[in-house]
Amino acid sequence: MTAARYLGNHAFALEDAPVPQPAAGEVRLRVAWCGICGTDMHIFHGKMDARVKPPQIIGHEMSGIVDAVGPGVTGWSPGDHVTVRPLDSCGVCAACRAGHSHVCMRLKFVGIDSPGAFQGLWCVQARLLHRLPADLPLDLAALIEPLAVACHDVRRSRLAAGEKAVVLGGGPIGILVALVARAAGAQVRISEIDAGRRAFATALGLEVLGADTAAEVEAWTDGAGADVVFECTAAAPCAALMTQLARVRGRIVLVGIFTQPVQIDLFRVFWRELELLGARVYEAADFEQAIALAPSLPLDRLVSGRFALTEIGGAFAAAPTGMKTLVACS
Amino acid sequence: MTAARYLGNHAFALEDAPVPQPAAGEVRLRVAWCGICGTDMHIFHGKMDARVKPPQIIGHEMSGIVDAVGPGVTGWSPGDHVTVRPLDSCGVCAACRAGHSHVCMRLKFVGIDSPGAFQGLWCVQARLLHRLPADLPLDLAALIEPLAVACHDVRRSRLAAGEKAVVLGGGPIGILVALVARAAGAQVRISEIDAGRRAFATALGLEVLGADTAAEVEAWTDGAGADVVFECTAAAPCAALMTQLARVRGRIVLVGIFTQPVQIDLFRVFWRELELLGARVYEAADFEQAIALAPSLPLDRLVSGRFALTEIGGAFAAAPTGMKTLVACS
Repeated sequence: MTAARYLGNHAFALEDAPVPQPAAGEVRLRVAWCGICGTDMHIFHGKMDARVKPPQIIGHEMSGIVDAVGPGVTGWSPGDHVTVRPLDSCGVCAACRAGHSHVCMRLKFVGIDSPGAFQGLWCVQARLLHRLPADLPLDLAALIEPLAVACHDVRRSRLAAGEKAVVLGGGPIGILVALVARAAGAQVRISEIDAGRRAFATALGLEVLGADTAAEVEAWTDGAGADVVFECTAAAPCAALMTQLARVRGRIVLVGIFTQPVQIDLFRVFWRELELLGARVYEAADFEQAIALAPSLPLDRLVSGRFALTEIGGAFAAAPTGMKTLVACS
Repeated sequence: MTAARYLGNHAFALEDAPVPQPAAGEVRLRVAWCGICGTDMHIFHGKMDARVKPPQIIGHEMSGIVDAVGPGVTGWSPGDHVTVRPLDSCGVCAACRAGHSHVCMRLKFVGIDSPGAFQGLWCVQARLLHRLPADLPLDLAALIEPLAVACHDVRRSRLAAGEKAVVLGGGPIGILVALVARAAGAQVRISEIDAGRRAFATALGLEVLGADTAAEVEAWTDGAGADVVFECTAAAPCAALMTQLARVRGRIVLVGIFTQPVQIDLFRVFWRELELLGARVYEAADFEQAIALAPSLPLDRLVSGRFALTEIGGAFAAAPTGMKTLVACS
């Protein structure tokens, strides 16, 4: 089988590897598709070499078919369509014991901290599998993982039907958050400065705010402010803006990954009794919701490119210009 | 009756005013005691002249006795011991309609936006009254208002018995938050740099952290972090520190009033899925809780000075050096 190994500094090597054998508790998957995530792009640019330790097989937004089951695995059979929730929690830290194993204090992210899915056959722990309906196309199923991120973000916001939500950022996660929020019955508007992304969101039927986001939200909400704001940009201007957009007791969900401290208007947080809620990855329930929602969402429209595993370098080169680039791995 | 009128620039004028008559829906109170709040100090220093419009009678941390009731007032009689929840909400804005009238979008704060309690007789709306037990000393009852702030902060944190809470700041509000948190069954530690305030907290039986707050909290919580952090300093270093102290899914309550944007480690908020919760003033339930808790708390220890209304200038001069300075108003 073929595996793509990230070597560091934008380089992948293809290798012909022996068929791996699933250990106890593992299944062997025939990887169908694997998408390229923003984190994969960071890895590609060499920013996470200390963590991924090249040469490493990466990739975690995947779909596949059970190919073989290892000793002690029950409930899974060859032919089952699955995706993987790529979180390997320790089970014993304070976060795990408190029921927050998805943000385990020693969390290993499968495909970053351990080998990932950019290979034809992949052995993973059976406890990380989620079953896919057989009629969900496997290319679109590779979007379940980022869709689960969006489900987690929306769940964390406690968004209710009829509420007004602003999504800052129209990248893949922002678009998925907007789609999930709309599916929850909320009224949704996106703020995005890139013209191409604005056009894309509009084409999906999403409402896009203009340049003066604060004034538009004020007018839209009769001066009250939005019930929920999803910050999906990790841009300092949006960190400054988000507190202006939320109503009294409004919820702001922090989805974007700010690598540096940024200035926040804590006076506004105090004055309006805002809630700022960090949201990271997903829980099992978010994967289940994503799988249930997927058929009703225009996921096909988000797929901007499809590449063979042998073209993985081209896939990574193309990824920044589109919404979601998929790699066929077997 | 005597009234103290703030003139601007650290100056008060005493005047002999006629006995006011309560309008419909009002009661006339004989003001017993009125405490000096941090906001009163800001006013005293001239920082809020645009809002208070001197000459103005200020003061809102009060206790008193009903002296007369105006037309249409039921349920109150002369002799009743009361305190005033000094929030005049509009009742019709989006925040009021959503049940958050304490942070009404057009909130008028009695004693800042309208005349306050530094006078012998004061007419206020009966709907703002809370009944005091007759055996609660009226000097200590002047602390019900700041104690209600602390009750609100603790309620907002959803603090549970047995949880570990860190209070950043050992001023009057920080101390009251610590006392309310302790009364809720939490384990509480205070971080405070001022030696006098550290000694005061220790004398109250509160545990005080040393200079390396982060390391101490880490050790205290076996590496997990605190369940709740109360930020009561409005100091930039504490804004940077607070996110380091909270456990995964921990709650950080923003009590301090940051007048300028400050740098916040949003990565930590994301990574640990923290909650930052703005908390402002109080609701009726917080006043009721404060009144119920007051007899069990060492409020007398917080009273650092007592002055007559004719000495109000001296009271304001002394206030910054103590915990809570009270003025006898009648």
